[in-house]
Amino acid sequence: MLPQVVSWEGNRLSLLDQRRLPSCVEFLKCEAAEEVAVAIETLAVRGAPAIGIAAAFGVALETRGGRAEALRAVQRLAVTRPTAVNLFWALRRVEERMKTVPEDAPGDALFSVVLEEAKTIQREDLEGNRALGRAGAALLPDDCTVLTHCNAGALATGGHGTALGVIRSAREAGKTVRVYACETRPLLQGARLTVWELMQDGFDVTLLCDNMAASLMKSRRIDAVIVGADRIAANGDTANKIGTYSHALLAKHFGIPFYVAAPLSTFDASLSSGEDIPIEERAADEVRKLPGGGMLPEEYSIWNPAFDVTDASLISAIITEKSAIVPPFAEGIASFLSK
Amino acid sequence: MLPQVVSWEGNRLSLLDQRRLPSCVEFLKCEAAEEVAVAIETLAVRGAPAIGIAAAFGVALETRGGRAEALRAVQRLAVTRPTAVNLFWALRRVEERMKTVPEDAPGDALFSVVLEEAKTIQREDLEGNRALGRAGAALLPDDCTVLTHCNAGALATGGHGTALGVIRSAREAGKTVRVYACETRPLLQGARLTVWELMQDGFDVTLLCDNMAASLMKSRRIDAVIVGADRIAANGDTANKIGTYSHALLAKHFGIPFYVAAPLSTFDASLSSGEDIPIEERAADEVRKLPGGGMLPEEYSIWNPAFDVTDASLISAIITEKSAIVPPFAEGIASFLSK
Repeated sequence: MLPQVVSWEGNRLSLLDQRRLPSCVEFLKCEAAEEVAVAIETLAVRGAPAIGIAAAFGVALETRGGRAEALRAVQRLAVTRPTAVNLFWALRRVEERMKTVPEDAPGDALFSVVLEEAKTIQREDLEGNRALGRAGAALLPDDCTVLTHCNAGALATGGHGTALGVIRSAREAGKTVRVYACETRPLLQGARLTVWELMQDGFDVTLLCDNMAASLMKSRRIDAVIVGADRIAANGDTANKIGTYSHALLAKHFGIPFYVAAPLSTFDASLSSGEDIPIEERAADEVRKLPGGGMLPEEYSIWNPAFDVTDASLISAIITEKSAIVPPFAEGIASFLSK
Repeated sequence: MLPQVVSWEGNRLSLLDQRRLPSCVEFLKCEAAEEVAVAIETLAVRGAPAIGIAAAFGVALETRGGRAEALRAVQRLAVTRPTAVNLFWALRRVEERMKTVPEDAPGDALFSVVLEEAKTIQREDLEGNRALGRAGAALLPDDCTVLTHCNAGALATGGHGTALGVIRSAREAGKTVRVYACETRPLLQGARLTVWELMQDGFDVTLLCDNMAASLMKSRRIDAVIVGADRIAANGDTANKIGTYSHALLAKHFGIPFYVAAPLSTFDASLSSGEDIPIEERAADEVRKLPGGGMLPEEYSIWNPAFDVTDASLISAIITEKSAIVPPFAEGIASFLSK
């Protein structure tokens, strides 16, 4: 059984500290939005939907200090990470709900409303992932092997997962699914989180390095590549963990379906294409740490983009909680978002 | 200045211990073939040409024990690593030279002949790399940016390097070359060796993770990908460090020339295609080590092939010491090897 990733306990927010996995299962207990912001920045909590959920609860922590305090929390949380749009989407939902509370309402009213909204976002994400999972499972053969990248699982969401939700739902539908998980340099979310998460649930999962994917696709039967997303533009271009774009190009070459699994909260209709998605570059030290200990020299010049953008033309379907969207994506996305 | 990678000192073989780079510059002093074999198996010395050179010297260490002892050393060294053909090529050269020594020759005669042959292999490899470098340099624009993978440098050869030899020769010819070096999981030969080696010589080099190559090729101008090789089949299919195949497929997609730089000792005319090249799978622990310390759980299932095979159709030219071979490779290779 997986532990609860984000949960409200008493008056604190409990976050499973994903930096310590799989060696330690430990929880951060946050009492202030600033602690939640740092947890997001340092990847104690990560994954686009989970970031949004944690941020919404982070605002709740500050509501008892009044509306101005809560709005400062929104601003602080909004500058933690730039790429995942679910963060801004969740903060906007919370802000909108706050507007429904009269200025002269008692102090606890704001708190109740924001906390309720955060819980709703979390519950809807979980329910959405179950629906998304079922829609995606229908796309997989009854006996199949899939490749995934990074962690788009229960650890990255309100539960069940997006890419891993499809895998879970396929098993629930009686299908047999074997998984290859790419380690996902530099922070190894695939190795540390996805393999661990799937093993907790008894899946057949094999770890490989990111650079082995081409060999794998050529030498063994891979039925699908399934990944999550951090932001999807109006045309279907998809920002996701660095390395996703490479897998998509390879899948195209080998004729393997490439699926993106993401809730509608991951879509950003304000951006016409992926070129406009801001890509976070993270600290060089993430790449500098050597396996087994030690660091590469300080004077090394290092490029460390955390995400890349996969062209919509490389994507076979975008699996959402409403159903799978197939090309041409622009029409499907517009229609889904307008409903 | 780079230290000497493989050198004969007194009656011992000195090997730069590449497992410790870049933090420590230390040397193994080998007095027996078994020590050289273990150095090859554990990657203290690595790189197809350097393995061949070290193995030849390794046989020399045993010649004073007589012919039978020397032949046992050949057999032991031949089972260290399966993929790089230079190992078998060098051992065969040494064995052939041993046959020229009469059975009743004094004990030192065998030693002198084998040691001389090992030194010749090393010197010829260095000279070959300089010729190869010049041939490759001619293919690069006067001001260019190249991507390389793993380490095919002075550290992997008798000196100057193959892929990095092309880069060195281009600079000697007055060209400006910027380098992106992929870290090369799991053992990070790109990060630990290539960046370090190029910085010793003052090159402009930037490190990135293997999974960032697609983003790099899309977002910045990359004029060429240049890699080394561990074995090249008669049709041009090329085994090289895992991840090479992925770079080749991406380069094809982006219209970037993809060059393999390797001496003729890397060709194996006995194999009609890359399908017949044996691919070494190495211990899972190489992937299990976590950056900064610690290990992934023992119960993880891990796939760790050390090499992959790049289809000849993805290669723009194979740069050798005689000149660059261009497609169709089968004819060019046959003609070069028969000369």
